[in-house]
Amino acid sequence: MDEFTLIKDLLRPLLTDEGASVARGLADDAAVLPEQAGRNWVVSKDMLVEGVHFPKGSDWGPVAASRLIRTNLSDLAAMGARPEGCFLGLGVHFDAEGTRWTREFVRRLGSELVTFGLGLWGGDTVRSPDARFVSLTILGTVSTGNAIGRSGAEVDDDVYVTGSIGDAAYGLQLLAGQREVESREVKTFLVDRYQMPTPRLGLLAALTPHVRAAVDVSDGLLADLGHIATASHVSLNVEWSRIPQSAAARHISGQNQVPISVLTHGDDYEIAFTAPPSAADEILRVSERFSLKISRIGRVVRKLSPDHEPVNLIDETGQIVTPPVAGFRHGGIK
Amino acid sequence: MDEFTLIKDLLRPLLTDEGASVARGLADDAAVLPEQAGRNWVVSKDMLVEGVHFPKGSDWGPVAASRLIRTNLSDLAAMGARPEGCFLGLGVHFDAEGTRWTREFVRRLGSELVTFGLGLWGGDTVRSPDARFVSLTILGTVSTGNAIGRSGAEVDDDVYVTGSIGDAAYGLQLLAGQREVESREVKTFLVDRYQMPTPRLGLLAALTPHVRAAVDVSDGLLADLGHIATASHVSLNVEWSRIPQSAAARHISGQNQVPISVLTHGDDYEIAFTAPPSAADEILRVSERFSLKISRIGRVVRKLSPDHEPVNLIDETGQIVTPPVAGFRHGGIK
Repeated sequence: MDEFTLIKDLLRPLLTDEGASVARGLADDAAVLPEQAGRNWVVSKDMLVEGVHFPKGSDWGPVAASRLIRTNLSDLAAMGARPEGCFLGLGVHFDAEGTRWTREFVRRLGSELVTFGLGLWGGDTVRSPDARFVSLTILGTVSTGNAIGRSGAEVDDDVYVTGSIGDAAYGLQLLAGQREVESREVKTFLVDRYQMPTPRLGLLAALTPHVRAAVDVSDGLLADLGHIATASHVSLNVEWSRIPQSAAARHISGQNQVPISVLTHGDDYEIAFTAPPSAADEILRVSERFSLKISRIGRVVRKLSPDHEPVNLIDETGQIVTPPVAGFRHGGIK
Repeated sequence: MDEFTLIKDLLRPLLTDEGASVARGLADDAAVLPEQAGRNWVVSKDMLVEGVHFPKGSDWGPVAASRLIRTNLSDLAAMGARPEGCFLGLGVHFDAEGTRWTREFVRRLGSELVTFGLGLWGGDTVRSPDARFVSLTILGTVSTGNAIGRSGAEVDDDVYVTGSIGDAAYGLQLLAGQREVESREVKTFLVDRYQMPTPRLGLLAALTPHVRAAVDVSDGLLADLGHIATASHVSLNVEWSRIPQSAAARHISGQNQVPISVLTHGDDYEIAFTAPPSAADEILRVSERFSLKISRIGRVVRKLSPDHEPVNLIDETGQIVTPPVAGFRHGGIK
């Protein structure tokens, strides 16, 4: 297999009619996007490298495909955007083992594109002499002017987070053999949360115009809230006991509170956001409509000043838990 | 240096005011593109891998940056699109030598962005354990419906190509030590043509609506004309003696005609296109206005049928030169 065969035999069959029109059958020099009156295009790019973000070896193609798509979609979700299409970059091997890996990667990619209604609009395939790498530029749209950023949080906003925090950290530890658990159900749930994160698409659009600032939890809950605080020039408090933990994660941690090491891990791909107290009822309604737990975990307490950290973790006695935790450096299984 | 420092110290300073607005200071989860009434977005993605598309070693960062930007821009040029912005993917090393390489890469990238009026709108940076790789998703716009593809060529169209063909092939051979030349001037010209190709931006927009089909010459002139012929379901003849050769290339080849080996090399990043004979005067005027040589090299002679090759190279006696040449497989210095 070479790059021409890869495009013809594996990638072209993934084109839908609409996608084929935008991508011009993957035959032209570039793709042409339809005009979207009243909507902005929103663009995000992410790359994963073998041996850095996923393990070397033949079985990881499907997981790489799912994580590449889903973590990118999580970025769109955090902006309030709707997914439209993507451009795929593949740096792969063309020997027999490499071809098997690529086949498995592309098969999963195809089913994920269908799952999320995402068009494959173009890309590039090259030979990588050593570690494989995969790259995705994803495009979505949002109604004009309604993209949600990190800089809109205001004093007295409530701070919310979707789903549960820490599952992916345990899933990764279980995969790496750093931890064991007897229950197959618990293990499957946690590993899935790492390998197949669920981008919270549609949520922020449903909450427009209530949400003031949002971020997806990829670097770690505290670090990502730090991005909101810094960009918004505010300081916020997070009540440790309110950070949501799944039953499976509690089974592992044996604690009622999410351990600090897990708060700093990242890979959760939940959405953290701020909204004024007046939005609480609407947030509850949307939470029920999406069947998605949304937890109020803190509050924006003041403008940012040199006397206060951007994010303070508060324990049940009201004390600030030190040290406030630095940002997670993106990684994965080595 | 790690990815955060790289973004903060090297990439963020490249943002222009307009770019910073689209890219949201490289601080949000995604970029938000401005609405472009009456224009389509055109998107292309390309990747270069160390040891495959450029040599390993510390001196090649600037060349990798120039080629990444310019070859991508050539794709936009072939669609008739105007460059607007780009998303950069870097898979690099973070040790001292790696940091030097990245610094040199980013410095050249910055000057190329200025040269072409291209915004840096986002991207991703990761650690690559082995070979470095760089990826670019480039976005341009074209007035709605005026993107030029490969499928519009019609019987009796003339076939044109810009500039000269083969310079990059010789430049690469000189760089690789496979060939030598005494004249420093000749060497510099040919090496520059490989390392700093000139995307023919603006040309096709100036020629709208005359151009029926276009492609950029990256795989090799005959292979790329084959893409037009196949997509348009036509067969075209190319007169070998009319294929333009620079004085420097003629100095190397010692022949009046571009050698076949050079026609199949690619890396020229000229534009090949078809237009009806009635457009000849306008093409001449635009050629003068752009100070860009545009050569008529052949004609679309019939609808494609099993009896005829998509592209026939014709010698001065009118004979078809066989074998017609297969597509170049993308590569570079190994």
